[in-house]
Amino acid sequence: MSGFGDATAVERTGEGRYKVELDGDYAFAGAVNGGYLMAVLDRAAVDLSPHEHPVSTAATFLRVATAGPAEVIVEPRKTGRTTATSLVTLVQDGRRAVDALVTTGTLDTGTEASWTGPRPVPSLPPLEECADFAATTGEQGFAAQVDMRFDRSTMGWLEGRPSGSAELRAWFRLRDPHEPDAFALALAVDALPPVALNLGAKGWAPTVELTWHMRAVPAPGWLTLHGGGRLLSGGWFDEEVEVWDSAGRLVAQSRQIAREGR
Amino acid sequence: MSGFGDATAVERTGEGRYKVELDGDYAFAGAVNGGYLMAVLDRAAVDLSPHEHPVSTAATFLRVATAGPAEVIVEPRKTGRTTATSLVTLVQDGRRAVDALVTTGTLDTGTEASWTGPRPVPSLPPLEECADFAATTGEQGFAAQVDMRFDRSTMGWLEGRPSGSAELRAWFRLRDPHEPDAFALALAVDALPPVALNLGAKGWAPTVELTWHMRAVPAPGWLTLHGGGRLLSGGWFDEEVEVWDSAGRLVAQSRQIAREGR
Repeated sequence: MSGFGDATAVERTGEGRYKVELDGDYAFAGAVNGGYLMAVLDRAAVDLSPHEHPVSTAATFLRVATAGPAEVIVEPRKTGRTTATSLVTLVQDGRRAVDALVTTGTLDTGTEASWTGPRPVPSLPPLEECADFAATTGEQGFAAQVDMRFDRSTMGWLEGRPSGSAELRAWFRLRDPHEPDAFALALAVDALPPVALNLGAKGWAPTVELTWHMRAVPAPGWLTLHGGGRLLSGGWFDEEVEVWDSAGRLVAQSRQIAREGR
Repeated sequence: MSGFGDATAVERTGEGRYKVELDGDYAFAGAVNGGYLMAVLDRAAVDLSPHEHPVSTAATFLRVATAGPAEVIVEPRKTGRTTATSLVTLVQDGRRAVDALVTTGTLDTGTEASWTGPRPVPSLPPLEECADFAATTGEQGFAAQVDMRFDRSTMGWLEGRPSGSAELRAWFRLRDPHEPDAFALALAVDALPPVALNLGAKGWAPTVELTWHMRAVPAPGWLTLHGGGRLLSGGWFDEEVEVWDSAGRLVAQSRQIAREGR
């Protein structure tokens, strides 16, 4: 098991060009996880930016990426005092796999929110009441990298009893000592199983587009993921994830649009 | 007053190149409205795509665009059977103003939703109980193009009494006979005043990034806009807008991240 920092490392090979080695431990059925890919793209974007945090990442997934070597190309589109925007592309085997518009900025760790909406309802049950599937199925692949504990009331689909409501909730942390940072948040916003599984959809649901916003620098400790959705229609569904940190702050928000699995 | 179709027209001048004339009637304090710009970009993207609808538009606003001539450059990134993705850029005076990743697909008008979440609560009051500011202030600029009727309970900020809740609700239609379509939805998702005005923020709030998804082909008639937000922190706030059509269907969803006005 490699650490998350090593697994998402980008090596500069030229102006705006990075060599990466996509880690098969973050793959599922051969396809590398989209959140992991965004973490890699965000690292390259931040490397070339004067700013520290990927405040906005809008990623379009063009093709499946697989374990092995790939290249990240960062093309600056505007660099300003408060923000900088780049077009960041993952290329593998000579073909684009992901395109992302990434806007970096610098969030102040000490900032207190001026206003925050209500915390998600219902909140997560305590850790010890949640389901730890890795404990029974074994820690392999993604489950060996990420420790997730699921709110059992949102996991009925696993036993053929989808809840009928597009909700999923889980505790989340990396298994290695890597405390939550911007790049772990990129992984977190796409770590839940597809919420459409609770609507009777089956199997893998390819993400077409996912935008996430980093809202605060996360405190150390567990994160909580609150996944929801609004509509499944014509084979398309949306999924929203809010990530809250151990200090009770909203640290990331995402929405993706995906195709229903079949 | 020009019609919305004319105002957003794109004229092909070469492979993936379009000439446009940005209409000052959609500007506010010199800056052309972001939703209008997305409508223009989406029209160019659809023109070059085999698919009919802008299912996903992730736009990053780099610089203010002003009334007058501009160019749209559409660079195909992947063209597939179900979807096609392009990088679409608005260039004015030799500088990029907006970059967008646009994924097109074709939504079937007759599709019934497989599942839909609850309608927004509270719903909008009837039209006749809503505030029609254009009737008193006169129909100028944006208000001459778009007929909006606001839920009075969300407009206290106008009289110096912000509600303290990041919500705004309004009925929406174009004043010309242009019935709602994909491009009117692009306008609708960015038509509300900034929700942060209800949190005490002042003035113009520049959008940094806005992603919107088209979820269904809208029925003729009025649309309703339900705007919300989750967090205002460090000068950044998010705003989510759901657009519902006259048939009671969720037709578009957006989230933007913007800078607080000062």
